[in-house]
Amino acid sequence: RYGEAELEDQVGVVTGLAWTEVGGELLTIEGLMMPGKGRMTVTGNLRDVMKESISAAASYVRSRSLSIGVKPPIFEKRDIHVHVPEGATPKDGPSAGVAMATAIVSVLTGIPVHREVAMTGEVTLRGRVLPIGGLKEKLLAALRGGIKTVLIPEENAKDLADIPDNVKSGLNIIPVTHMDEVLRHALVRQPEAIEWEEEAEPLPKIEDGEVPGLTAH
Amino acid sequence: RYGEAELEDQVGVVTGLAWTEVGGELLTIEGLMMPGKGRMTVTGNLRDVMKESISAAASYVRSRSLSIGVKPPIFEKRDIHVHVPEGATPKDGPSAGVAMATAIVSVLTGIPVHREVAMTGEVTLRGRVLPIGGLKEKLLAALRGGIKTVLIPEENAKDLADIPDNVKSGLNIIPVTHMDEVLRHALVRQPEAIEWEEEAEPLPKIEDGEVPGLTAH
Amino acid sequence: RYGEAELEDQVGVVTGLAWTEVGGELLTIEGLMMPGKGRMTVTGNLRDVMKESISAAASYVRSRSLSIGVKPPIFEKRDIHVHVPEGATPKDGPSAGVAMATAIVSVLTGIPVHREVAMTGEVTLRGRVLPIGGLKEKLLAALRGGIKTVLIPEENAKDLADIPDNVKSGLNIIPVTHMDEVLRHALVRQPEAIEWEEEAEPLPKIEDGEVPGLTAH
Amino acid sequence: RYGEAELEDQVGVVTGLAWTEVGGELLTIEGLMMPGKGRMTVTGNLRDVMKESISAAASYVRSRSLSIGVKPPIFEKRDIHVHVPEGATPKDGPSAGVAMATAIVSVLTGIPVHREVAMTGEVTLRGRVLPIGGLKEKLLAALRGGIKTVLIPEENAKDLADIPDNVKSGLNIIPVTHMDEVLRHALVRQPEAIEWEEEAEPLPKIEDGEVPGLTAH
Amino acid sequence: RYGEAELEDQVGVVTGLAWTEVGGELLTIEGLMMPGKGRMTVTGNLRDVMKESISAAASYVRSRSLSIGVKPPIFEKRDIHVHVPEGATPKDGPSAGVAMATAIVSVLTGIPVHREVAMTGEVTLRGRVLPIGGLKEKLLAALRGGIKTVLIPEENAKDLADIPDNVKSGLNIIPVTHMDEVLRHALVRQPEAIEWEEEAEPLPKIEDGEVPGLTAH
Amino acid sequence: RYGEAELEDQVGVVTGLAWTEVGGELLTIEGLMMPGKGRMTVTGNLRDVMKESISAAASYVRSRSLSIGVKPPIFEKRDIHVHVPEGATPKDGPSAGVAMATAIVSVLTGIPVHREVAMTGEVTLRGRVLPIGGLKEKLLAALRGGIKTVLIPEENAKDLADIPDNVKSGLNIIPVTHMDEVLRHALVRQPEAIEWEEEAEPLPKIEDGEVPGLTAH
Ligand SMILES: [Ca+2]
Ligand SMILES: [Ca+2]
Ligand SMILES: [Ca+2]
Ligand SMILES: [Ca+2]
Ligand SMILES: [Ca+2]
Ligand SMILES: [Ca+2]
Ligand SMILES: [Ca+2]
Ligand SMILES: [Ca+2]
Ligand SMILES: [Ca+2]
Ligand SMILES: [Ca+2]
Ligand SMILES: [Ca+2]
Ligand SMILES: [Ca+2]
Repeated sequence: RYGEAELEDQVGVVTGLAWTEVGGELLTIEGLMMPGKGRMTVTGNLRDVMKESISAAASYVRSRSLSIGVKPPIFEKRDIHVHVPEGATPKDGPSAGVAMATAIVSVLTGIPVHREVAMTGEVTLRGRVLPIGGLKEKLLAALRGGIKTVLIPEENAKDLADIPDNVKSGLNIIPVTHMDEVLRHALVRQPEAIEWEEEAEPLPKIEDGEVPGLTAH
Repeated sequence: RYGEAELEDQVGVVTGLAWTEVGGELLTIEGLMMPGKGRMTVTGNLRDVMKESISAAASYVRSRSLSIGVKPPIFEKRDIHVHVPEGATPKDGPSAGVAMATAIVSVLTGIPVHREVAMTGEVTLRGRVLPIGGLKEKLLAALRGGIKTVLIPEENAKDLADIPDNVKSGLNIIPVTHMDEVLRHALVRQPEAIEWEEEAEPLPKIEDGEVPGLTAH
Repeated sequence: RYGEAELEDQVGVVTGLAWTEVGGELLTIEGLMMPGKGRMTVTGNLRDVMKESISAAASYVRSRSLSIGVKPPIFEKRDIHVHVPEGATPKDGPSAGVAMATAIVSVLTGIPVHREVAMTGEVTLRGRVLPIGGLKEKLLAALRGGIKTVLIPEENAKDLADIPDNVKSGLNIIPVTHMDEVLRHALVRQPEAIEWEEEAEPLPKIEDGEVPGLTAH
Repeated sequence: RYGEAELEDQVGVVTGLAWTEVGGELLTIEGLMMPGKGRMTVTGNLRDVMKESISAAASYVRSRSLSIGVKPPIFEKRDIHVHVPEGATPKDGPSAGVAMATAIVSVLTGIPVHREVAMTGEVTLRGRVLPIGGLKEKLLAALRGGIKTVLIPEENAKDLADIPDNVKSGLNIIPVTHMDEVLRHALVRQPEAIEWEEEAEPLPKIEDGEVPGLTAH
Repeated sequence: RYGEAELEDQVGVVTGLAWTEVGGELLTIEGLMMPGKGRMTVTGNLRDVMKESISAAASYVRSRSLSIGVKPPIFEKRDIHVHVPEGATPKDGPSAGVAMATAIVSVLTGIPVHREVAMTGEVTLRGRVLPIGGLKEKLLAALRGGIKTVLIPEENAKDLADIPDNVKSGLNIIPVTHMDEVLRHALVRQPEAIEWEEEAEPLPKIEDGEVPGLTAH
Repeated sequence: RYGEAELEDQVGVVTGLAWTEVGGELLTIEGLMMPGKGRMTVTGNLRDVMKESISAAASYVRSRSLSIGVKPPIFEKRDIHVHVPEGATPKDGPSAGVAMATAIVSVLTGIPVHREVAMTGEVTLRGRVLPIGGLKEKLLAALRGGIKTVLIPEENAKDLADIPDNVKSGLNIIPVTHMDEVLRHALVRQPEAIEWEEEAEPLPKIEDGEVPGLTAH
C-alpha cells in the first residue's frame, strides 16, 4: 500500500512525484512540528539539491507567514522535521519544492492536505513554480497510485501534448504558476491571513491548541 | 551469549534484526537517557541512513510525547544516547527504525521491553511501519537467537509464503502497520497518555523519580 | 517564461547573467529577509566561489548600511536568504557579485529592482566592480530574454568592440566602476542615507513596517 | 619503559591491550578532568570506532554516576580529556571500551587504578562486556609488559584453551561480564553510591577538594 | 586598471605581491570592519595556508592592540572581513601575511594605507617577517603596476643581487624584519599607543566615531 | 637567520626539533595569549597528529595550572593561539609535544623561555615524556642552529651511543622523563605554585598586569 495515495487527509503529509531510472513514482513528504528552538531537520537519504529545496521552501513559507495566519515568533519556538520515507533510496533534485512548501504550511497551520492530490515543481523564494523534467513518467505513477489531481508547473503545460489520452482523462491535471494556487488546491481548507506587530516583547506566548501534534490520542 | 535474546526485560534495550551478506542476525539497540540539554548521541559504527532512521524515530516519539505520558520540556533537559553494540561491524539502512523508536519510548517512559520480542521495519515520522528486505534471513536469526515473537511490517506479510514452516511454527510472527501496535507488543506495560499545557514558564521542574537511570544500584 | 525578464519590478529579485558551456543565460537572484537572528542562508546548487561572492556582497552592504538608510542592528535581528533558482544546475564564479549586492540592498531597503535591468560583475568589499568573462554570450542572452539595460564592468568596455552591432543597438549597455552606480541604475528609487549613533542599548526596536515581506497579501 | 606496566597506581591511567599486525601490545589510556563546561576531548590518532567507544563508555558512566558517588551536575562543570599516547600510531576498534570506562570512572571519583591490571573488552551502554579478537596476542603482551592481572570478556573464556600454559600460569586471568566487575578488580578502592535529588537549582556548588587534579604538587 | 596601484590611499586596502605560474602580480587585500560579535570572515578563493596566514596576522594584531591604540573589547564587538578579490583565481601560501596584518591594523585604527606601497612576507605571531619565494617576479609586477615602494623580508635582501638594475632603480625596496617597520612605511600616519585596564565591566561602550565605515557618504 | 636560535629569551617562543626527509631542522613554536573566551587556535600547516599534540599539551597544562601559579578561570577568559611559522611546510607527528606544553606554560605565566634551549619529545596528559625518532638528525640541526642545550626523552638516551662525538661535545644533552624537568631547564625562572578555591562566584576578576601581551611597547 505504500507508494499509493494516503487513506486519509493528514496534516503535514504531501504526495510528491519522483522521476527515477526505472520510471516515475509517488514520493511521500512528511512534515512534523514539535516544541523546540527553531531547528530544521531534514532526513530520508536526501542529496544536497533536495535539501536546499527544503531550505528554500521553508524560507518562502516564513516570509509569507502572516498570509497563512502564522505569527513569526513561532519559528523560534518550534522545531520542524521534514522526512522523505524509504530511506534506502537516495533522492535528489529541486522538483519536490512545492510539495516541501505545502508540507511546511500544513504543519504550521494544522490544516490537512487532500490525500488524493499529488504535485511536482521547483519552488522559488517568492513562491513561483518552475518547470520540471519527467512529466510523463510522473503522471503515469500518479495514475497507478490512485491519485485524482496532479498539480504541475504552468511552464510544463506545453508537454501535455505528449501525454497519452488515457492518462489525461484519468487525472485532473492543473497547471500552476505560484504556491498560492498550490495551497488553494492542496489544503482541505484555506488559512486566513492575520496582522501582527513586532512588539517590544518579541516572542509572545503561543496560545494553547495552536500547535498540532501535541494532543494525546 | 551475545547475539541471543536478553536474559531479562530491560529499559531501553530492544532487539532488532539485521540482514547482512552472511545471513541475518540479532541487533541489540541500546537507548540511554541522562540529565542534559537535549543532545542526541548515536554510536555503533552507523552509516548515514541508519543515523537518519534514529533521527526520524526520535522526532516521531517527540511528536507523540503526550500519548506516552512524557511532558515535552523533558526533551530539553535530558540527553539521549542510542548505541548499537559490536562496533567492529558497520551498520546501515532504515529497517531498524521501529526498534529505534521503541528504545527511545522505553527510556523516556522507564517501561522495560519484553526481552523475547524482536522487530524489523522502517518507521515514518507519523509512526507508519514500512516494508523491509531479507525477511527470511531475519526470521531464521530470530529463531536461532531464542526469540519468541517477531514484529514485521504488514506489507511484508505476503512474503511469509516463502518462509519454511518450521520457522513460522517456532515464532509468533505479528504483522504491524503502526508504531502503536509495535509498542503494544514490545513494552511490558502500556504508557498512559497525559494532558499538558505549554505554560508561561515553559520548562517546569521534572518530578523526582520520573527519570530512570538515576537511581543508585 | 522563466529565463526571461520578470513581469514586474520586485523587491529582492535581480537578473544576473551567466556564461555556461552552451552560451549565456539569465540568472535570477532572489533575496529574502525574515525576522531572525542574523543568519545568512545561500542555496541554489552554488559552488564555493559563488557562495563567497555572496559573503563579500553582504559585507559590502553591511559596511555601507547607513548610506542606504539601514540601521546596523537590523543585521542581528533579521535572517537573509539568497537563492538562485533552477537547482538542477550547478553555478559558480564571482561574476554575479554585483547582482548579489543589489538583491541584498533591495531586501534591506524594501526598494524594488527595475525588472528590465540585468547586470554582471565581480564586487569587492569596497563596492568596486571588477571585470568578468563571456561578455558577448551574456549580452546575447540579455537581448533574447527581453532585457533593456545591461550594467557591465567599466574594465570590460573595451570588449564591446567585438560585440555585434545589432546587440549593441538593442540594449542600453552601461559600464560601471562601483556599486553606487549599479544601485542608481537598478533600484526603482534611491535609498536615503541616515545618521545613527551606537547607543548604550545597542539593539533598538525595529519600527513597524520597516521590513518588507511581513505584510499579509 | 613505556609499553610496560606503570610504576605506581594513578588516577585516570588504565592499561588496555591492543592487537596489531605485529602482535599485541600494551595501550595506555589516560583520562584527565579539568574545570570546564562539559566538553569531552579525545586524542591520540584515534579512528572513528575507537572514538565512539569512548563516547559509549562516557554515557555508561554518566548513567551510573550515583552508583559511583558522583553528582550529575559535575558533567556540566568539568571537561574530560581522554588521550591514548604514542600519537604516531593510528588506533581503532571497540575493544578498549572497558579501559575507557575505567579511566573515566577513575578521574570522576579520584580513585587510582591498580597499575598491574590490564583489560580488554567492548563495553555497551549498560556496561555489559562484549567479546574481542586477538586474545592470545594480547595476553602475551601483558605478560611481557609486567602485568599481573588481565580482565577479559566472559565470552572469550572459551578461547583460553588455545593459550600456552606458561602464559596462563604467569597471569591472573579474570573473565568478566559487566563493568561492575571490571571496576571491582581495577580500582584500588571501591566508590560508594550516593543519593541525589534533582533540585530547583539544578547545578549546586561543587565541594572543595572533590575534584582531583587541582591540587598543586 | 585592476592589478595596478590604487588611485587613492584607503582604509583597509593593501597591495600584496603574488607569485604564480605565469609570473608575479599585484594582489589586493581588502579588510573591512563592521558592528558585530567578533566574527572573522575570509573569502576570495583562498586555500588553507593563506587562510591560516590571516588567522596568524589577526592574532598578532590582537596581541598588540594597545600599541596601535585599540582597546581589546572591540574584538568582541566588531566583525572583520578580509577578502582577496578576483575570486576566479585560487590563492595560497603564507607570503601575504604582512599585507593581511597591515589591512587589519588599518581597519581597526581607521588609518589609510599608502596606495603606492606594496609588500610581501610571511608574518609570525610576534610580528617577525619571514622570507618568501619569487622575489624577482614580484618586483617586476610591482614595477609594472605603478608601485613606488616595496617592503620585502630582510632575509630576502641577499636575493636582490639577482634583480635587474632597472627594477632596482625603479623601485624603493625596503628590507624589513618586523611588522613595526611595515606599519611605519605602509600607514599614512602612525597609530598612538594607549593604556587600558581590564575592568570589572569588561566590555565598555565604544565611543562614537571610533569605528570607520559607519559614516554615510 | 630564521631557523637558528632566537636572539633573546622570549615569552611563548620555544625551539622544537623536526625531522624531515632532508634532515633535521629547528622548528619555532609560538604561543600567544589574548583576552578572549577560552578559544584555542592552532595554525602553521599542521596535520592532525601535531594538532592533537597541542590539545594534549594544553590539557596537561590546564590540569596542572595551580602548580604553575595560574588560576583555572583564566582558561575561560583568554584565547590562546599556537602557531608554527613557515606555513609553506606541512608539519606532523607528536614529537613537538613538550615544546607545545612549554610554549603554553610560558604564555600563561609570562615567564620567558631560554633562547638557547631546544627540545623534542611526545608529551602525555600526565606530563610524561615519550621517545621520538630521528634523534641524530635533530641533534645535528640543533648544533648547526646555534643551540646550546637539547632536552631529549630519557628513553632515547640509549640512542646517544650512535651520535658522533663532536655533536655530543658541542651540545648539553639532557634526558628528561617528565614536563617538570623540561620546565626547570627551559624557563628563565620557575613559576610558583598557588592555592585556589573554586568559589560560589567561579570566575573572579583577573588582576591587572597578570597577563602578558597587553602592555603597549
Ligand atoms: Ca516506492
Ligand atoms: Ca480530500
Ligand atoms: Ca553478532
Ligand atoms: Ca517479558
Ligand atoms: Ca535557464
Ligand atoms: Ca522599471
Ligand atoms: Ca608501544
Ligand atoms: Ca595496586
Ligand atoms: Ca590580476
Ligand atoms: Ca600616500
Ligand atoms: Ca626552515
Ligand atoms: Ca638564557
